[in-house]
Amino acid sequence: MLQEKMGHHLVSARSDLDAYRYDASFGEFFPEAVVYVSNTEMVSQVLEIANEYKVPVTPRGQGTGLSGGDLPIHGGITLDMSQWPASVEIFPDDLVARVSPATLTSEIHVEAEKYGLMYPPDPSSSNISTIGGNLAENAGGPRGLKYGVTKDYVLGLEVVTPEGDVMHTGGRTIKNVTGLDVTKLLVGSEGILGIITSATLKLIPKPATKQTVMAAFPTMETAGEAVSTTLTSGILPAKMEFIDQACARAVEEYEPLGLPTDIEAIVLVEVDGHPTAVQEEAETVMKIMKKLGGTFVSVPRTKEEALNMWKARMLVSPAIATIKPTRASEDATVPRSQIPVMMVHLADIREKYQLSLVVFGHLGDGNLHPNILCDERDKEELERVEKAVGEIFHSALELGGTLSGEHGIGTMKSPFLEKELGPVGVDMMKRVKQSWDPNNIMNPGKIFPDKGQRLILSRRGEK
Amino acid sequence: MLQEKMGHHLVSARSDLDAYRYDASFGEFFPEAVVYVSNTEMVSQVLEIANEYKVPVTPRGQGTGLSGGDLPIHGGITLDMSQWPASVEIFPDDLVARVSPATLTSEIHVEAEKYGLMYPPDPSSSNISTIGGNLAENAGGPRGLKYGVTKDYVLGLEVVTPEGDVMHTGGRTIKNVTGLDVTKLLVGSEGILGIITSATLKLIPKPATKQTVMAAFPTMETAGEAVSTTLTSGILPAKMEFIDQACARAVEEYEPLGLPTDIEAIVLVEVDGHPTAVQEEAETVMKIMKKLGGTFVSVPRTKEEALNMWKARMLVSPAIATIKPTRASEDATVPRSQIPVMMVHLADIREKYQLSLVVFGHLGDGNLHPNILCDERDKEELERVEKAVGEIFHSALELGGTLSGEHGIGTMKSPFLEKELGPVGVDMMKRVKQSWDPNNIMNPGKIFPDKGQRLILSRRGEK
Repeated sequence: MLQEKMGHHLVSARSDLDAYRYDASFGEFFPEAVVYVSNTEMVSQVLEIANEYKVPVTPRGQGTGLSGGDLPIHGGITLDMSQWPASVEIFPDDLVARVSPATLTSEIHVEAEKYGLMYPPDPSSSNISTIGGNLAENAGGPRGLKYGVTKDYVLGLEVVTPEGDVMHTGGRTIKNVTGLDVTKLLVGSEGILGIITSATLKLIPKPATKQTVMAAFPTMETAGEAVSTTLTSGILPAKMEFIDQACARAVEEYEPLGLPTDIEAIVLVEVDGHPTAVQEEAETVMKIMKKLGGTFVSVPRTKEEALNMWKARMLVSPAIATIKPTRASEDATVPRSQIPVMMVHLADIREKYQLSLVVFGHLGDGNLHPNILCDERDKEELERVEKAVGEIFHSALELGGTLSGEHGIGTMKSPFLEKELGPVGVDMMKRVKQSWDPNNIMNPGKIFPDKGQRLILSRRGEK
Repeated sequence: MLQEKMGHHLVSARSDLDAYRYDASFGEFFPEAVVYVSNTEMVSQVLEIANEYKVPVTPRGQGTGLSGGDLPIHGGITLDMSQWPASVEIFPDDLVARVSPATLTSEIHVEAEKYGLMYPPDPSSSNISTIGGNLAENAGGPRGLKYGVTKDYVLGLEVVTPEGDVMHTGGRTIKNVTGLDVTKLLVGSEGILGIITSATLKLIPKPATKQTVMAAFPTMETAGEAVSTTLTSGILPAKMEFIDQACARAVEEYEPLGLPTDIEAIVLVEVDGHPTAVQEEAETVMKIMKKLGGTFVSVPRTKEEALNMWKARMLVSPAIATIKPTRASEDATVPRSQIPVMMVHLADIREKYQLSLVVFGHLGDGNLHPNILCDERDKEELERVEKAVGEIFHSALELGGTLSGEHGIGTMKSPFLEKELGPVGVDMMKRVKQSWDPNNIMNPGKIFPDKGQRLILSRRGEK
């Protein structure tokens, strides 16, 4: 039936499915078929039939997700959105952009800047991830500190419901309180409520200039203090990033940048806005850093020097990837005040399980990225990793934090969901899912754990 | 049963109910009982019993709502939250505040400023409205242009579900993608999904300084152009407000401030941030205003002069209230680029129905406040008002706008809901409501129209 309607847009040969069994997270699951969709009508047709025959549908963009959002846990159809034509229309007078789901996020950045505007969300994957995936997972990024995350810039959506109906939510006005906010409900819903086929995004005037401040700290406590002192001094930086000692060492090993490696944290701050303000704020940040025991406190004198400073942060991922073949990348998030305590917990976990655990991330908003480097083929080590990941989740929750700051729950964190939300919280979310998708065809196995499911990193489908 | 449990916290004498039959909107509806609640446990008890006996429950703060959110359309219990102890706890290191529902919004402003922080949402009613009401309606305000609305500052909620369970949503981290975003679903849900009993709000560093620019424009077109030129020049003002000629005349009549009255619009801009930036931005805004034909372009030289300029905007409401006894205050919102066209439509509607229609509001985000001054006792006039209000809604939707920017749908705008959202959009919202509140006890008659309901301003309950 679907084959008939979709023709060559549907493939089901094992060889064609191979590339769809994994993404940037753990686990492997084969879909039974892949449908290449490139317009709303096609999505609607697929969902209508899938709903009738109760076949799971998992949407997929570029497969860069870190929580398994695009893994077809229960088989069925993978909806490949990547061939949908990219499209960014800027409406400068309304300060909005209308985008198609397969548009790379970086393309939106480029197009907005042509009009002196900015689309602030900047997940580290923005050069390779699609806005559709960003919307489904509510992607964050370094600029979240000052500018918020993807959700904060979504004004309206076109969505195909699990039953195949086309719905328009929100609109193109900045203020809109007409009815329940299903726009923000859909953003970050990890594909379990429908397929986003178009989005209207809010843009803001692009800040005139920016400046970087770099500093090293002997302890995480002082680095944390530098953050709160800055934020209560009337300055809201665009970014406050950090890398720990292990990351700094890995980067120096990978490509020597002259980073200090005998310190606990390197902090990178970016302030943006009006040139005079930026200059003065950078000076204030430097003073705060120095006062709190920061060393190597400096601002770049040229653009090249600035890029070089940020290179330290950007090289962390490729640098640590050389340590061991497998990487468990987490995004447990704690209230800002708890960052130093969380860092102590992470050190304890590293010690207890004798693992290669490094930490970097968004210091300003408490969104840490503990990464465990391991070898998936080493079963004994993998078990220690699983235990360590579990303890990271528990620590974050104990400190008043959350399981996921920006990657999504997906399938790996779902066994811990009830611990954070309580049974009522999970039940109320399930009611929404059930009412929108009574046949549970939309991306089943995500957010809510399957019965008896526990954390297994190397989980695999049956095929 | 409820009487037994609540004792003297429940009243049902006609005289006690009198004050609960109206709010700041149209229509009159008596509740059958009022329960004064002052803690989560009491709310939970009331909802559990109300759900069992299928009795409608309508929450009420200070009764300042402009869309009838706190009118007990279907009778039942009014839950008076106003005696709940006010409470604002500031956690400066986390940049969050925890507040009780009956706290006046202005108290949050005051407490946050003690720590050099700011809670940005600033509905004009902030001195008399509670945060609980702001949360239920997703209140906006002038600063929405730069800083967003209530929803953008809510990190977590404590909520009593329609069945009486206590649920905690979100948390106190800036980034949180754990599960479906029921926090943002609840904010602006107009009390139909549960009762908010506590909220964790995001604070930001308070901008160091601010400056006002005032200008008058001969036409709305040029005023609109001044807005988009400013916003694409790299400047994002905190506020861009306007009042039309009729408002300016009413204010001059009420309290002579020396406003120009032979122009189509007076625009008030506030830029905030770093002192040097603010000064330069104010100068740039002045240049833009002058270049686009603005007259009387000026900045205040003292704080008193600045207050006096904003007085022009603040006196609009009391000034126009003297024109006629009844006021239909709307908040239809259009994309920024459509503001001049919408103003022409509003002038046509004023002409067609021969009404006293004045316009002011938030020019920067397209959130207009057309106000029709009339006399509720004049049935013939009221019918013209109803037709005019209907046409205002239609115009806003035609121009790609929305029925409500910041007041809520309530009961008056609900007959127009499907026109904006389409049948699928309304259906998906109703499914959420139905799944959370199967007995439809939470604030029934709001957002979704009753069967056959049409716009009647002077709608009254049976009692």
